[in-house]
Amino acid sequence: MTGGGELKLLGMWASPFVTRAKLALQIKGLSYEYVEEDLGSKSELLLSSNPVHKAVPVLIHDGKPVCESSVVVQYIDEAFAGASPSLLPADPYERAVARFWAAYLEDKLVTPWRQVFRVKTDEERAEVMRQTIAAADALEGGLKECSGGMGPFFGGESVGYVDVLLGGMISWVKATEVFSGAKIIDAAKTPLLAAWMERFCELNAARAVLQDVGALVEYARAVQARFAAAAPNN
Amino acid sequence: MTGGGELKLLGMWASPFVTRAKLALQIKGLSYEYVEEDLGSKSELLLSSNPVHKAVPVLIHDGKPVCESSVVVQYIDEAFAGASPSLLPADPYERAVARFWAAYLEDKLVTPWRQVFRVKTDEERAEVMRQTIAAADALEGGLKECSGGMGPFFGGESVGYVDVLLGGMISWVKATEVFSGAKIIDAAKTPLLAAWMERFCELNAARAVLQDVGALVEYARAVQARFAAAAPNN
Repeated sequence: MTGGGELKLLGMWASPFVTRAKLALQIKGLSYEYVEEDLGSKSELLLSSNPVHKAVPVLIHDGKPVCESSVVVQYIDEAFAGASPSLLPADPYERAVARFWAAYLEDKLVTPWRQVFRVKTDEERAEVMRQTIAAADALEGGLKECSGGMGPFFGGESVGYVDVLLGGMISWVKATEVFSGAKIIDAAKTPLLAAWMERFCELNAARAVLQDVGALVEYARAVQARFAAAAPNN
Repeated sequence: MTGGGELKLLGMWASPFVTRAKLALQIKGLSYEYVEEDLGSKSELLLSSNPVHKAVPVLIHDGKPVCESSVVVQYIDEAFAGASPSLLPADPYERAVARFWAAYLEDKLVTPWRQVFRVKTDEERAEVMRQTIAAADALEGGLKECSGGMGPFFGGESVGYVDVLLGGMISWVKATEVFSGAKIIDAAKTPLLAAWMERFCELNAARAVLQDVGALVEYARAVQARFAAAAPNN
């Protein structure tokens, strides 16, 4: 382990945002202690480490907490700069391109996707699925631009920042396809992205940390049932 | 000018996101050509430089476009690393703290604030204002944490990344207070943030680029009228 210091990750198995942090740690070859949180009864450590959002993931490095998955991934890259691969490129322009697509992913794909299991009507679900799929279509262009048209990853020859952020979502992309019956990453429409997803899943880090899709489908059904029960007009 | 190369900023006077880019350029002492866009009839240069969002700001550096205000500000900091001050601290943990609060600002303050002029009912406006004000209250804690409790800026002794992102919003914060009749940054509730705002406005860079509040109030009324006219139930 390069850099050094004690690393502890507070997480929850189903969270794609926690999965991003796990992927970054695995890809950089860093040892860490993983602590599963019960989000129905959050630990004092979680509440005191992330008083603003009270959410996972939190990475605690030598007692100092880092919150928010994209911030955690960048922190891991910078605090352990000596551990290869570097997730963000060295060149400022290439970094800007990666950050642009990372922001696109968060705003245009993750934001509507988070609503898929929470909306009340089939019509609303169709609309947020339409937005999620449109974002995946645009990411096909992002993969070309980030990798300089060469691939195989957003980060070029090795996985980078956008790979980790999107990679953390892969099991959820698959679970959402099962849940909704609609393809998000479609080999016919987004062949580069579909090939990227297969390639990513073959990485040792992905094999080690990506969630079981069937377990996520069950989890999604429970979330949907909870939101449906909580909705005032149901 | 350190770094070098030709800088061109595509903007629109009222945009707080363009103001962030202008602030970063001014604070780092960089010369640039400013091009005002007519968003009702976007230039070919804007459309080809930001084909994904077709939005300002776009910073074009030696012909290469950088889009999204937070990405532009980080790019300016990294591509012109020799021009002081550095907007992001050198220490990875301090960088993570700044990024955390930058993400908080975007998600919790900017997102509801953007709805203030677009919602249809007074009740909806009161709700998005409530969210905006709650975010400003939390940023009081962010200012303490980012500056190590010392201030005077989020960046510590000199302005940094979060200062630039929030600083670009200042004229809009004031215009929104006039428009809504409610205080967002209130000296009684958020004394540190109120003092920060006064201090920021005294900077030469702020004097040079922050918009006239009265002009923004007029602009906001026009935006509201347009959304009201477009609403199907009006």
